[in-house]
Amino acid sequence: MNDLTITLRQDAGRHLYEQIYDYIKSEIRKGKLRVGERLPSTRSLADFLQVSRSTVELAYEQLLSEGYIEAKPCRGYFVCQVEELFDLKGGEPETEALTETGAEAGASINVHTGTGEETPPCICDFSPNTIDMTAFPYATWKKITKNILVGANSEMFTYGSPKGDPVLRGTIARYLHTSRGVNCSPEQIIIGAGNDYLLMLLEKVLGRHVAIAMENPTYKRAYRIFESFAYRILPVAMDSSGMSVGELRKSGAEVAYVMPSHQYPMGVVMPIGRRMELLKWAGEKETRYLIEDDYDSEFRFKGKPVPSLQASDRLGKVIYIGTFSKSIAPAIRIGYMVLPVPLLKVYEEKCSFYSTTVSGIDQKILNEFIEKGHFERHLNRMRKIYRDKHDLLLGELKTMERQFKVLGANAGLHLLLQDERGRSEEMLVRQAAEAGVKVYGLSEFCMEDIPSYWNGNMVILGYASLSREQIREGTGLLKRAWK
Amino acid sequence: MNDLTITLRQDAGRHLYEQIYDYIKSEIRKGKLRVGERLPSTRSLADFLQVSRSTVELAYEQLLSEGYIEAKPCRGYFVCQVEELFDLKGGEPETEALTETGAEAGASINVHTGTGEETPPCICDFSPNTIDMTAFPYATWKKITKNILVGANSEMFTYGSPKGDPVLRGTIARYLHTSRGVNCSPEQIIIGAGNDYLLMLLEKVLGRHVAIAMENPTYKRAYRIFESFAYRILPVAMDSSGMSVGELRKSGAEVAYVMPSHQYPMGVVMPIGRRMELLKWAGEKETRYLIEDDYDSEFRFKGKPVPSLQASDRLGKVIYIGTFSKSIAPAIRIGYMVLPVPLLKVYEEKCSFYSTTVSGIDQKILNEFIEKGHFERHLNRMRKIYRDKHDLLLGELKTMERQFKVLGANAGLHLLLQDERGRSEEMLVRQAAEAGVKVYGLSEFCMEDIPSYWNGNMVILGYASLSREQIREGTGLLKRAWK
Repeated sequence: MNDLTITLRQDAGRHLYEQIYDYIKSEIRKGKLRVGERLPSTRSLADFLQVSRSTVELAYEQLLSEGYIEAKPCRGYFVCQVEELFDLKGGEPETEALTETGAEAGASINVHTGTGEETPPCICDFSPNTIDMTAFPYATWKKITKNILVGANSEMFTYGSPKGDPVLRGTIARYLHTSRGVNCSPEQIIIGAGNDYLLMLLEKVLGRHVAIAMENPTYKRAYRIFESFAYRILPVAMDSSGMSVGELRKSGAEVAYVMPSHQYPMGVVMPIGRRMELLKWAGEKETRYLIEDDYDSEFRFKGKPVPSLQASDRLGKVIYIGTFSKSIAPAIRIGYMVLPVPLLKVYEEKCSFYSTTVSGIDQKILNEFIEKGHFERHLNRMRKIYRDKHDLLLGELKTMERQFKVLGANAGLHLLLQDERGRSEEMLVRQAAEAGVKVYGLSEFCMEDIPSYWNGNMVILGYASLSREQIREGTGLLKRAWK
Repeated sequence: MNDLTITLRQDAGRHLYEQIYDYIKSEIRKGKLRVGERLPSTRSLADFLQVSRSTVELAYEQLLSEGYIEAKPCRGYFVCQVEELFDLKGGEPETEALTETGAEAGASINVHTGTGEETPPCICDFSPNTIDMTAFPYATWKKITKNILVGANSEMFTYGSPKGDPVLRGTIARYLHTSRGVNCSPEQIIIGAGNDYLLMLLEKVLGRHVAIAMENPTYKRAYRIFESFAYRILPVAMDSSGMSVGELRKSGAEVAYVMPSHQYPMGVVMPIGRRMELLKWAGEKETRYLIEDDYDSEFRFKGKPVPSLQASDRLGKVIYIGTFSKSIAPAIRIGYMVLPVPLLKVYEEKCSFYSTTVSGIDQKILNEFIEKGHFERHLNRMRKIYRDKHDLLLGELKTMERQFKVLGANAGLHLLLQDERGRSEEMLVRQAAEAGVKVYGLSEFCMEDIPSYWNGNMVILGYASLSREQIREGTGLLKRAWK
């Protein structure tokens, strides 16, 4: 822990976050911030500098993305080893110049960290964005990779089909049909390096000036991506069945982004009636489409398996998007998009010349992993692991059932707690943090203000990467904190 | 070879290319076109159906991208094994319906292939779009992959930094500095799954409504990508030093796309004077930028190494784009973009939330390949191999030197022949084809009509993937054909 003297100038022609970023980066480079040292929390630095917390977060995010610092769950931000990050001459003249002039003219603020203002160390982080990688079949993956490479030839190292390896597309089509009821031919599948990329491709297919409806709250990453397309985003109210079709009609949207199998973050599983209403809405106009993000459909713990929305689509209105990030591993960067036939034609005309974004070898490895049954075995194993954690968490929360209602508990890797004693989300998050537990307020997932229909009294608990012991300890701490 | 009876309807509500595509696909599915069978050439099918050749090409491209047919260099299009491409129920109702109604109302045309109309078999294909993969160090690549996976842990399988692995970015920064004189810090580097993707990202950084200057002729893939962004593309005349800065000024462009190390396809190496003029142009306005595509800079055979344009850039005006597709292998799908500092800030604000498109494991493999010196050894080996082929080709062409001027011969993997007897490109291509040799007319790389300053009398010969015997045989045939 150390003092951070950051000189901030409102008129420097540089954003405040850049000035914070520049300062910390320079301190790390000069060795004044040493490897392993903990940075002040974003909250305490923001308080000291009298800037908004998001300003500090932006600076930290940039430092994170550049490898200067790392985030340790529940513990904070730490300075990394930066030998690899030496600066080449002429790199950033502007930055250097500004740091100098800034030092002359600005006002100094002394930031003392490590004071009593710090929140206590976080013991348990109920992040909804993690997966459990401990049970990943590393040995199998290695073996498949080795076997694929034994047969490596020049053909495998050349450009592949823009839509992805036809063999893998066939395999994915079969998998989606069997496990999700998706009706498509392999021709309709486009393989891409993650869903963000596939959405960028979809922008080219749907065009600009799209008015897109999203449930509120929703998946914030998709929101930010649509925002970066300058799409007109229309937050649409949801009820216990998901997006309200009445509100959707009023919104004037042409495209609606939904997660019918398990809405993120509300956990709503859309019943068949609402699905039919949505499909009817889409069918009424040629330009209307539904984007179905089936992000964690593999993990359902209670009740009959729910097929995808695409499975009920008779008119070619559903754009189905899925990923192996949750079911295999985030790092493999392979997702897929199923285009309805009318949009496939647009894709062929407008986008078919874009080179594939996934390496041919990686596609072969994944194909083998699915085809030889390893994927199914892995999913079964993970379903059991997640169900055990899920049931343990639900059981531990049972003693709090007079205080909280549990929502979205039958599927997916997170659930929601709704306070029944009138406490606000903010209070719940703060009380938990004071006890060393990180839970997530629903407002983080909302587009504007938190919609009144959710009362502002909910928190989200993810459990995928926690051990059974951590779940027990975390819920124990929460019980005392929220008593 | 067989008869293709294709029913085409102008009023079917479907493009002609779709109808051709549907018909051939259906014939393959029904087994009427058998595996290994050769399809008619695009030219002969277009002649028979009385449609434009690009219509047939579009249909073939789609069949290619979907794996129904494959293209064998110089030999034509062949039907593929399609077991993997079974159709799931409900796949393409529209297609089926139209095929039926189309059959009732349309006029039948019998296409006989295998007649005397065929061009003779192609013996030698001087394609400028290939690389030699025979000398790729497969064993080394396999070994590195194996070693990386031995140390595989869950961290390696999680999301990486959006800009790419900081360690690999450091390695690339050092490599670019040493080999190309590029001045940048690793923070300025963004790693992405190929140049097409990086250009999509750049669109988000530069914004819409960009007026972009391109040399005419240029790299057609980049042209199509900018076209798909709805950028205003301004073809700018070039001379023997590359893009004319006078014409660039007149064009009103804000951004210019150039290939100073070895213009594609003209092979021009931009001299320092012209580079300075370009940089001066860019420096005059804050919104002006230069995109430097350094696509095959590794291969230079004569004269001093030419540093990149970015190396001379003192004002942060050059966006430098490179790839490992030519220097390692197309299939690895790793490229990089170096953003000048002002644009880096825009990237951080607008795009830093896009997930990386390259797998963490692949990044580690590549880093090891470069760091341990394998990349340099591979490049040296390839330089020698390509230089030998290059010199052989030049030597063989020497006997034709009274007929042709050779252009762009000191670098890169292709060169140009300019006819000095007034024969047109079309005639040269046709005469070569009749002798079984494929050469490429310059007009294929031009944006509109072929600019008058190139006279329409040039052909392009690529040699990267040809063996020494093929080069000898091919040039021998050309000599007789063009006598």
